[in-house]
Amino acid sequence: MFELRDRDGLGRLGAFATPHGTIDTPALLPVINPNQVLIPPKEMVAKFGAQAVITNAYILHRSMRERALAEGVHDILDFRGPVMTDSGAFQQHVYGGVAVSNEDIVAFQRTIGSDIGTSLDLFSEPEHGADRAKADLEETLARTRRAAELAGSMTLAGTVQGGLHADLRRHCAEELSKIGVGVHAIGGVVPLMESYRFRDLVRVIVAAKQGLRPDRPVHLFGAGHPMIFGLAALLGCDLFDSASYVKYARDGRLLFADGTRHVEELRAIPCECPACSTAKLEDLLADERLRAEHNLYASFAELRRVRQAIAEGQLWELVERRCRSHPALIDALRELRHHNEFLERFEPLSRRGGFFFTGPETQHRPILWRYRQRLPERYRPPRRHVVMFPEGPRPYATTRGELISRILAAKDVHFLVKSVWGPVPIELDEVHPIGQSVIPESLDAESLEAAEVFAQQYLRGAGYEKGVLWTGEECLADFPDTAPGALDVVRARLQAVADLQFGRGAADALLAGTIELVTSKTTGKVRNVIRDGKHILSLRAEDGFYTLKAEGGRILHAGLLRPALRVIVETDTAEFNRQGKNVMAKFVVECDAGLRPFDECLVVDERDALVAVGRALMNREEMLAFDRGVAVQVREGVT
Amino acid sequence: MFELRDRDGLGRLGAFATPHGTIDTPALLPVINPNQVLIPPKEMVAKFGAQAVITNAYILHRSMRERALAEGVHDILDFRGPVMTDSGAFQQHVYGGVAVSNEDIVAFQRTIGSDIGTSLDLFSEPEHGADRAKADLEETLARTRRAAELAGSMTLAGTVQGGLHADLRRHCAEELSKIGVGVHAIGGVVPLMESYRFRDLVRVIVAAKQGLRPDRPVHLFGAGHPMIFGLAALLGCDLFDSASYVKYARDGRLLFADGTRHVEELRAIPCECPACSTAKLEDLLADERLRAEHNLYASFAELRRVRQAIAEGQLWELVERRCRSHPALIDALRELRHHNEFLERFEPLSRRGGFFFTGPETQHRPILWRYRQRLPERYRPPRRHVVMFPEGPRPYATTRGELISRILAAKDVHFLVKSVWGPVPIELDEVHPIGQSVIPESLDAESLEAAEVFAQQYLRGAGYEKGVLWTGEECLADFPDTAPGALDVVRARLQAVADLQFGRGAADALLAGTIELVTSKTTGKVRNVIRDGKHILSLRAEDGFYTLKAEGGRILHAGLLRPALRVIVETDTAEFNRQGKNVMAKFVVECDAGLRPFDECLVVDERDALVAVGRALMNREEMLAFDRGVAVQVREGVT
Repeated sequence: MFELRDRDGLGRLGAFATPHGTIDTPALLPVINPNQVLIPPKEMVAKFGAQAVITNAYILHRSMRERALAEGVHDILDFRGPVMTDSGAFQQHVYGGVAVSNEDIVAFQRTIGSDIGTSLDLFSEPEHGADRAKADLEETLARTRRAAELAGSMTLAGTVQGGLHADLRRHCAEELSKIGVGVHAIGGVVPLMESYRFRDLVRVIVAAKQGLRPDRPVHLFGAGHPMIFGLAALLGCDLFDSASYVKYARDGRLLFADGTRHVEELRAIPCECPACSTAKLEDLLADERLRAEHNLYASFAELRRVRQAIAEGQLWELVERRCRSHPALIDALRELRHHNEFLERFEPLSRRGGFFFTGPETQHRPILWRYRQRLPERYRPPRRHVVMFPEGPRPYATTRGELISRILAAKDVHFLVKSVWGPVPIELDEVHPIGQSVIPESLDAESLEAAEVFAQQYLRGAGYEKGVLWTGEECLADFPDTAPGALDVVRARLQAVADLQFGRGAADALLAGTIELVTSKTTGKVRNVIRDGKHILSLRAEDGFYTLKAEGGRILHAGLLRPALRVIVETDTAEFNRQGKNVMAKFVVECDAGLRPFDECLVVDERDALVAVGRALMNREEMLAFDRGVAVQVREGVT
Repeated sequence: MFELRDRDGLGRLGAFATPHGTIDTPALLPVINPNQVLIPPKEMVAKFGAQAVITNAYILHRSMRERALAEGVHDILDFRGPVMTDSGAFQQHVYGGVAVSNEDIVAFQRTIGSDIGTSLDLFSEPEHGADRAKADLEETLARTRRAAELAGSMTLAGTVQGGLHADLRRHCAEELSKIGVGVHAIGGVVPLMESYRFRDLVRVIVAAKQGLRPDRPVHLFGAGHPMIFGLAALLGCDLFDSASYVKYARDGRLLFADGTRHVEELRAIPCECPACSTAKLEDLLADERLRAEHNLYASFAELRRVRQAIAEGQLWELVERRCRSHPALIDALRELRHHNEFLERFEPLSRRGGFFFTGPETQHRPILWRYRQRLPERYRPPRRHVVMFPEGPRPYATTRGELISRILAAKDVHFLVKSVWGPVPIELDEVHPIGQSVIPESLDAESLEAAEVFAQQYLRGAGYEKGVLWTGEECLADFPDTAPGALDVVRARLQAVADLQFGRGAADALLAGTIELVTSKTTGKVRNVIRDGKHILSLRAEDGFYTLKAEGGRILHAGLLRPALRVIVETDTAEFNRQGKNVMAKFVVECDAGLRPFDECLVVDERDALVAVGRALMNREEMLAFDRGVAVQVREGVT
């Protein structure tokens, strides 16, 4: 059983329960060769922080079948933690075939007590055409269905195949999602990783993820090089397995998050791990085990960096940096923008901390794609004319003095900043990620060009009657009716944020009546919005969005038609939420498809009675799929 | 005494001799506070690999003057390795003044046995105007001159001041170069590093380096954060000192090569160092010393990564990647291109291994700037017309089949590839860095635009009578005289490389007479060039340039007028070089200003008699400045 704990991008911190203990994901399962144990599983745990290992059932079956059946895999490995077994599918890729049937190997894994077993899928090579890949994946599906019948209480991993054919990968994933397996694996990717075809790897993972149900952990089979952990986690891979640590060590090579180096190439040891800190170059040259230890230290540390990046909302930054390690990874990074429609669905509303520009690719992160989608859909320009302030690189006005006051005072003229991320109305310059952006002063041509294109696109659709670029005060002469008519910026900000966050119309509903504002004594910024004496909204300093109070929830519930912002729970369980208890995913009946992780939402029962307000931790697909974990963190019950 | 061992960019692996041992540079000197020793110097050596430490003479003078005079600084620190002392200049910055004179503190440092002492320079703040900074640096220079008189046998560090004023920094550096000090320091930079003004830091370092003589190590005062080690080393800084490891540890913060993190922000420990590998988060939270250890492990490992990058010729790649860690570092990276005329003088001819694209900034590395400068100066187009093959991203033709044969067979029509780095004649597609390039398939707009600009610039100046862009075979119809007249590509390649490497005219000199070629049996490529029966050149597979044999040297010597390619040595010592011994820098009298590190060169005596051929390890300024080390690796003496 898999439970979601935190998230960033499609990356997730999860907990995956097995009969021999829980695995915190993303996790790396070191491969143990039962015939040749270089580093025993117990040491994997104690020294490197491994929680689970993987071993090959096909090898066990071939080389020590009787003993394995008698003792079980945990005794053979001398390990009481979770053990996953592979089926021999990869051996087909290497040797062209295996001498065991799907039924036999699944039954064998069950009998030896594997925590996670694998059916014998057919490994599609990248060069296989669509016909062959299709036939093979249908056979893989048939075998997985059969394996699910045979698996008993063993958790089964069902592997997505389909070669380089995105439609087949997705089809395979959709079919596997209907089978009662506990883990999904993405197979057939080792040849892509070995030949640095990372753009193809991205396409394959995204296609698989689009078809897979989101409540099961996803294992990227054979991924054991730390240079791709970040990218794979960003795309929603939860489990990795590594024989690389030992294979590379055998060849004299060391793994690093930025690539591979042969010990013979070294003049200095570019690493701080315990193996490298005490060693001399001669030791690393001579000692295979020391190299394997380095490889494990480097791999598990990179995994922790990925975990930390998810926790601090910096996974995109980590991946964008890592992708500078090799031009083929830059291609992978530049591929991501083509999948924004999918990626955006899982992208949190906002993240902790800064939002950092790392290069022209940052421009195309899903969160910015969303901003540029939502701005014309949700934001209503308050005035008929527009002055575009060519601030270029900066995302929001840094000079808030007299200049801006004048523009604001000009009747019917609206002030917009041409930021690198797209046009930013001054009222929205504190929402995430605009307000949290950290951007170089000197920008590359691609970023500047994109900023120009985004600004023009927006202006064409926004319905301003007239627009000019700010060239100095004289440009206001273009607007004969610039009599004083000062915009109430504070009010405009409250409205703009409400519409952007909750949808167009939300501002009209929320901000009617008598509005009082509570401002922060230290910053002077609005903290609480009081309507007719009732606290309806709080404005968060960290991301510029609202926190919804019960009274605000009532207004939105009345003002916005179903399904907007709704999470519909089983009427029987709604009473718990009224009392302030969180909404568990298993009780969610339906959900607004527009809700995103960390969005404020309305919890309603099946008759659309409002029972609570809270913060969604999942999107619709996840709420409907997950049987465990919290779907909505309830802030206030509505009684 | 400082000796150069290897290099990349302006970065250098050096050996700096002191009375208490040699320091391998780039080096980090941890700051030891004598009143509060958190980690003793001996442990700094044993555990972290430090070779030297730095302590503050001003603190010693104030708090334990008598004891220090009696015991000496090495006893007080219980350390027999090299000890550098600071003078209190930084305390002026912190406290506004110090209660000691320059004379007193220099004499004190000498008496307590400091290996490297520092004069009491005046710390210019970034906000100081030119007048104040100028007055202060003149005082700094006067104090340094006085200190040099007082220092006795102690090596003195003379500090470059001048605030943000590049002209003053350079002037100060030039004046300091005339004073008998052993180390140069760059001071007044802590405020820049603390406020992430990395672009200003680059300007300050480059200005100082332009004025400093190249034979002394350069210490970047107060640089103790691993995130800038790579950048500073790339610009020729050799020594760093760090109190950061302890200051940050005290605040609960951890240093990483990509920035700083507070332990309280962590959910996973994103590090593999021995301190972090065995610790839990609680331990790191509770234990200041553990945090300091992490900071030292991280700092010294980054320094080793820098050293390794210099050794493997990957320093630019390392720095370009590191600069993605913060937008202010991207600004620093984008600043570098403005200093290419200076940086190029120190840039090696070629490097080991691949040449990796990391982003649009790669385009402006000095090695590519040089290629684009030299192409029109040195390369002579062999034909009157040109077809520009729009290969865009790829630096050289990947389709060498029929298409290219046809173009090559077309009389008077020359084939040029519009690569991302600039136009590449097919004859030059194997020279460094063109032939070693690894480039993404998908390129950003800035890179593509630059490629277009470079191509147009070249075409305008190249003197082709007619040029077209390849649009398919039909474009050959533009050239009515496309009768077969096949270019001898092999010969054209030999000529083009000779001119590009040695200067225009070299090919005519070298490749006259009867030429035979020895080709590699495995690759079919030319290995050796035999003229009239004599081996004159070898063509290196790794960088596409020639190795010069004695016979080739004779021809170039006769064909190219002095000073081209010459390294002039004292006539008295020339005999050693005739016997095949290396040219030591101290015996170099003059040198061709066009020679670059790793260029092939002609060693001549003062009467321009050729005595040897070899590989220059330094450029002219270095050969003239260094008193130690090898200037030219002699390959063959000429007798």
